[in-house]
Amino acid sequence: MVRIGIIGAAGLSGRELLYWLRNHPEAKVELLTSSKYQRQKVCDVFPELTGYSQVFEPNDVDVSACDLVFLAIPNQASLELVPKLLEQGVRVIDLSGAYRLRDTNVFSQFYQLTHTAPELLDETAFGLPEFFKEKISTARLVANPGCYATGALLGLLPLGKLLGSLDRAPIIDAKSGVSGAGGRVEGDMTNYVSVNENFKAYKVFAHQHQPEIQQYLTDLSPYKAEESGDVIFTPHLLPVNRGILSTIYLHFPEAIPVADIRSRFLEFADEQKFVHFMDEGSLPDLKVTLNSNRVMIGTESDDSGQNWVVVSSLDNLVKGASGQAIQNMNLMFGLDEGMGLL
Amino acid sequence: MVRIGIIGAAGLSGRELLYWLRNHPEAKVELLTSSKYQRQKVCDVFPELTGYSQVFEPNDVDVSACDLVFLAIPNQASLELVPKLLEQGVRVIDLSGAYRLRDTNVFSQFYQLTHTAPELLDETAFGLPEFFKEKISTARLVANPGCYATGALLGLLPLGKLLGSLDRAPIIDAKSGVSGAGGRVEGDMTNYVSVNENFKAYKVFAHQHQPEIQQYLTDLSPYKAEESGDVIFTPHLLPVNRGILSTIYLHFPEAIPVADIRSRFLEFADEQKFVHFMDEGSLPDLKVTLNSNRVMIGTESDDSGQNWVVVSSLDNLVKGASGQAIQNMNLMFGLDEGMGLL
Amino acid sequence: MVRIGIIGAAGLSGRELLYWLRNHPEAKVELLTSSKYQRQKVCDVFPELTGYSQVFEPNDVDVSACDLVFLAIPNQASLELVPKLLEQGVRVIDLSGAYRLRDTNVFSQFYQLTHTAPELLDETAFGLPEFFKEKISTARLVANPGCYATGALLGLLPLGKLLGSLDRAPIIDAKSGVSGAGGRVEGDMTNYVSVNENFKAYKVFAHQHQPEIQQYLTDLSPYKAEESGDVIFTPHLLPVNRGILSTIYLHFPEAIPVADIRSRFLEFADEQKFVHFMDEGSLPDLKVTLNSNRVMIGTESDDSGQNWVVVSSLDNLVKGASGQAIQNMNLMFGLDEGMGLL
Amino acid sequence: MVRIGIIGAAGLSGRELLYWLRNHPEAKVELLTSSKYQRQKVCDVFPELTGYSQVFEPNDVDVSACDLVFLAIPNQASLELVPKLLEQGVRVIDLSGAYRLRDTNVFSQFYQLTHTAPELLDETAFGLPEFFKEKISTARLVANPGCYATGALLGLLPLGKLLGSLDRAPIIDAKSGVSGAGGRVEGDMTNYVSVNENFKAYKVFAHQHQPEIQQYLTDLSPYKAEESGDVIFTPHLLPVNRGILSTIYLHFPEAIPVADIRSRFLEFADEQKFVHFMDEGSLPDLKVTLNSNRVMIGTESDDSGQNWVVVSSLDNLVKGASGQAIQNMNLMFGLDEGMGLL
Repeated sequence: MVRIGIIGAAGLSGRELLYWLRNHPEAKVELLTSSKYQRQKVCDVFPELTGYSQVFEPNDVDVSACDLVFLAIPNQASLELVPKLLEQGVRVIDLSGAYRLRDTNVFSQFYQLTHTAPELLDETAFGLPEFFKEKISTARLVANPGCYATGALLGLLPLGKLLGSLDRAPIIDAKSGVSGAGGRVEGDMTNYVSVNENFKAYKVFAHQHQPEIQQYLTDLSPYKAEESGDVIFTPHLLPVNRGILSTIYLHFPEAIPVADIRSRFLEFADEQKFVHFMDEGSLPDLKVTLNSNRVMIGTESDDSGQNWVVVSSLDNLVKGASGQAIQNMNLMFGLDEGMGLL
Repeated sequence: MVRIGIIGAAGLSGRELLYWLRNHPEAKVELLTSSKYQRQKVCDVFPELTGYSQVFEPNDVDVSACDLVFLAIPNQASLELVPKLLEQGVRVIDLSGAYRLRDTNVFSQFYQLTHTAPELLDETAFGLPEFFKEKISTARLVANPGCYATGALLGLLPLGKLLGSLDRAPIIDAKSGVSGAGGRVEGDMTNYVSVNENFKAYKVFAHQHQPEIQQYLTDLSPYKAEESGDVIFTPHLLPVNRGILSTIYLHFPEAIPVADIRSRFLEFADEQKFVHFMDEGSLPDLKVTLNSNRVMIGTESDDSGQNWVVVSSLDNLVKGASGQAIQNMNLMFGLDEGMGLL
Repeated sequence: MVRIGIIGAAGLSGRELLYWLRNHPEAKVELLTSSKYQRQKVCDVFPELTGYSQVFEPNDVDVSACDLVFLAIPNQASLELVPKLLEQGVRVIDLSGAYRLRDTNVFSQFYQLTHTAPELLDETAFGLPEFFKEKISTARLVANPGCYATGALLGLLPLGKLLGSLDRAPIIDAKSGVSGAGGRVEGDMTNYVSVNENFKAYKVFAHQHQPEIQQYLTDLSPYKAEESGDVIFTPHLLPVNRGILSTIYLHFPEAIPVADIRSRFLEFADEQKFVHFMDEGSLPDLKVTLNSNRVMIGTESDDSGQNWVVVSSLDNLVKGASGQAIQNMNLMFGLDEGMGLL
Repeated sequence: MVRIGIIGAAGLSGRELLYWLRNHPEAKVELLTSSKYQRQKVCDVFPELTGYSQVFEPNDVDVSACDLVFLAIPNQASLELVPKLLEQGVRVIDLSGAYRLRDTNVFSQFYQLTHTAPELLDETAFGLPEFFKEKISTARLVANPGCYATGALLGLLPLGKLLGSLDRAPIIDAKSGVSGAGGRVEGDMTNYVSVNENFKAYKVFAHQHQPEIQQYLTDLSPYKAEESGDVIFTPHLLPVNRGILSTIYLHFPEAIPVADIRSRFLEFADEQKFVHFMDEGSLPDLKVTLNSNRVMIGTESDDSGQNWVVVSSLDNLVKGASGQAIQNMNLMFGLDEGMGLL
């Protein structure tokens, strides 16, 4: 039984961890914290979450009795807390963006923060289980991927060496529900009358998941940004609670047969518990991944066979955050990768 | 041309005033204020509001050159500002709840504020034009009604002396869009993921519009709360931007003929520019009053003829706030009651 | 292992049965039908429902090899099919309204149908497990309750003998998401632009769940409609996918102490797996029961103690339909009442 | 006073025409038709549309007394009706897609219809007033543009000769509210529970507005599809009632200075009543054009200056359909272009 601590358990990702861990047969939430709700009972704050008799502890509670701590707190708080937790011998899955980028200059540019623990970046496992199972399983620190990055990378990377023949940068036009794009933070991104019956692009050419996508695309495929260009990524805010749909535009210098594209995705999906490739002629919508840890992917091409659209769908709070974090936990503790997940 | 000032012009009601006054042939917005956006241009904050070249002034700007000032600020701020404005000889329409209740004890109980200008309450006109046209036309200070109160009172008062025969308190089960129930104030009443795909009752037996409804129901009809009971009012939060639908339950000790009920509403609607009574068999939904200053009302009874349901619909930002305020302005300045409104 | 057939498996309730039965350890869906999608694979119609390799059969498929058949088809179709299934020795849970009302005249009035199998009504168990566990466990035919009726009855019946002292009819002002109020049937109740940003009352004094509520309220409590009046029930259409919130107004001739009300609900909730009573000062919203088989209930009273508001919340597709049906199945086959449910 | 007939006045575009024409000082709706609601009063079908005392006529009513007929009916019906109307000497604005494409083979491919009046295509004016004012003003037949095409063309064409230097096809990732993507037609594109909390791409590489965009882009700019490729257009379905936001990706072989892009858009916006270009750093969302005939446009570039994103926003029922149709009517009858519009 893995003894779990959750720092920031009352935020959207934290609550989602509680939701899924409730029924996990090999995990036990030993303690959970919230600065906003400290000393309140979990069942008072979240009446729908039966089965938790605990109260929220303050964020600085002693977690040394835990085997694993999930961090679901802002970037700067994670940045500072991770080294302290590792020193105490606790393993950590960090849901923030603090330890995902290898280049601390890029980190500073996109996060407006100075990285204070660059020495940890090498050993950190990027928590995309489809590509880093082994490193994750032994890691002290797992950097759980960004929600947009998960959708983009799983929509691209199955193409494997075909990515080396792209003659233009992939364009990722992504649309996220509110919980993936601001969540409970106050302001125009989360205020009901600002978001409802509305839709907008934001942080165009400036979103912090762009370098995350580009780094792992470059690491894990033959794509070369210096040749074909920087990945173009435009996030949009959808008036829905959950879900990210990414419409990815690819251009090849020569026609790629449908069978070639499909076989790559199908093979990848076959090997991966939480990746599903749609039947020919079908594209995923948000609904097919809602409340599930799956990413679902479909493709379409034009008559020339040179222009391809890949559509990937995931639930930003599950595969895009807490579900993937539990998938990583399972790997870290030798459990079945899908345990406790749907 | 009425020279207008708007204090709090960037809130939801303030913005709605700007929207309607834009095309008003006899009003000119001379100055407008916002603490949050001061010194910013109106067209930068609200790109959809063409025609305003002004910047937002600070709230303490000198308004003495205005004929009329609309106050679209919180209760306490209105409470304090009104006497100062009246002293400067400016007429005022206050959209807050500060000057609606005659009984300062009730005010204290429901608003958690001490009334600091009780001497003004007698001369204040309650800005429900359907009942106070004359007083409004000469008033220095008009207290614009609450959105829920407008919907409830216009659903009840046309019944006239029939209200004297009610043997039970009316039950008003009201449902409001977010802009009428919290608006841009931060928190669970306005946060997108809290409100979307959700619905709830709030302030049950404790909402500040209950005494407002009861006071004017008692003043303007033979209804006696001490005999039939206090009006029961339950507000709910709807996941829509705008609109209030009130479902009002009435019980009479004897059957009331359909024709009797209908004729009273029809006669009232005939006399009132912004009141519409639905055809038999029809009830209004929210859509029929959206972006309009009208209140629309329908009724239904059971076989006994003793139980009646009245449904009233209005747009909380128009007839429930800023549209009604402009209707009041028109009356105050001898203009056609409906000028600039739909 | 219970061998299951589902007639009408591609409608909203049918799909919800599939969703929950997927992970039920003691049930196996042997066959499922859909007139619209017959011969198509389940995973093509519902890509999110992994684990079903079947195709949809036509509705007239032979189900005699099943232990239990769920009917998720329109009233008339159920009315006709049930006797045929019982003759084949198959047990049936009917999610339609065909076998809920004991009085066939009332049935005709509210359903515009003539009852063609009145001889079955006596033996039919009303599938409200909180009150009919025993009868359900041995029944050949279970009439699964209406979604509104479930919310209303579970909000009222725990009050037990206090219901005998009500001096007025309870007023149930209920608000349902679209899946509980029309679902996939085409028209103004389900068309997106008709429903979105809208809200309305419908079937006022005419909804078929009113007699269902009244019949079981009268059967199971000392409430007497002939004395206090017919239950008043007003359904409304909410712009959300799922959920029913019922605001129930009760009036007692004398004050009822808070402790008296609370202790009755708490005791009831203690005994019932899927009933939860909120802490003092809290009322349930829709979110707390979403995707769960629980009904959650809260109460509030005015200063007099004579006026009470009960608010009940449930997910109309779970406790209001398919979840409750599975709860009934568990009882019919001697399984744990909550097996496979949350 | 222009005497107006509207064929198909109860559909979404038809109703929107009624909404705007109500207050048009120089137009009078003489007759209006609806197959679904024939013989019903307008005010019964649309209680919110005050001012119409008419009933809906059947679609085959005699319109020869009208100066102008708006067609808001399906493509095939328009295709057939237009020649008959022109023969009667009535001028026509057709809101369908029947007369927009010059190439009847392309028309057949995308509309699955054979064009039965190709002889009219030459004289037909494409109703994009920003580019065809003169031809519109004298035309017998105006083909009102598609909603997506309007948003895409007005986001692209102001760039003028810069479009000749694009080295890749523009990618238009467009997102439309339900009224622009199926409206009241029944099915998965308009059913509430299918659309709400969901989002999807549809008709990828196959939407009928793609050839419309490409034809006029080629006609009105130096863009050459045979060199840079066919325009790539992906429509998506947004869970909102109204609005289209188009995110347009452009790539230039060399850096384009910000000032160059901005000056072109600003100059264009200066000349066009209903085109607005956002301040630097701002992009339009859907809200800024809701219920308005304006299209609002913003741009953003990456550090290289070679990659540009143009975002255009419009209300699909106003500038994307009925508002633009009225703008065209104004031009056809020598009225001020913006009369009756906002």
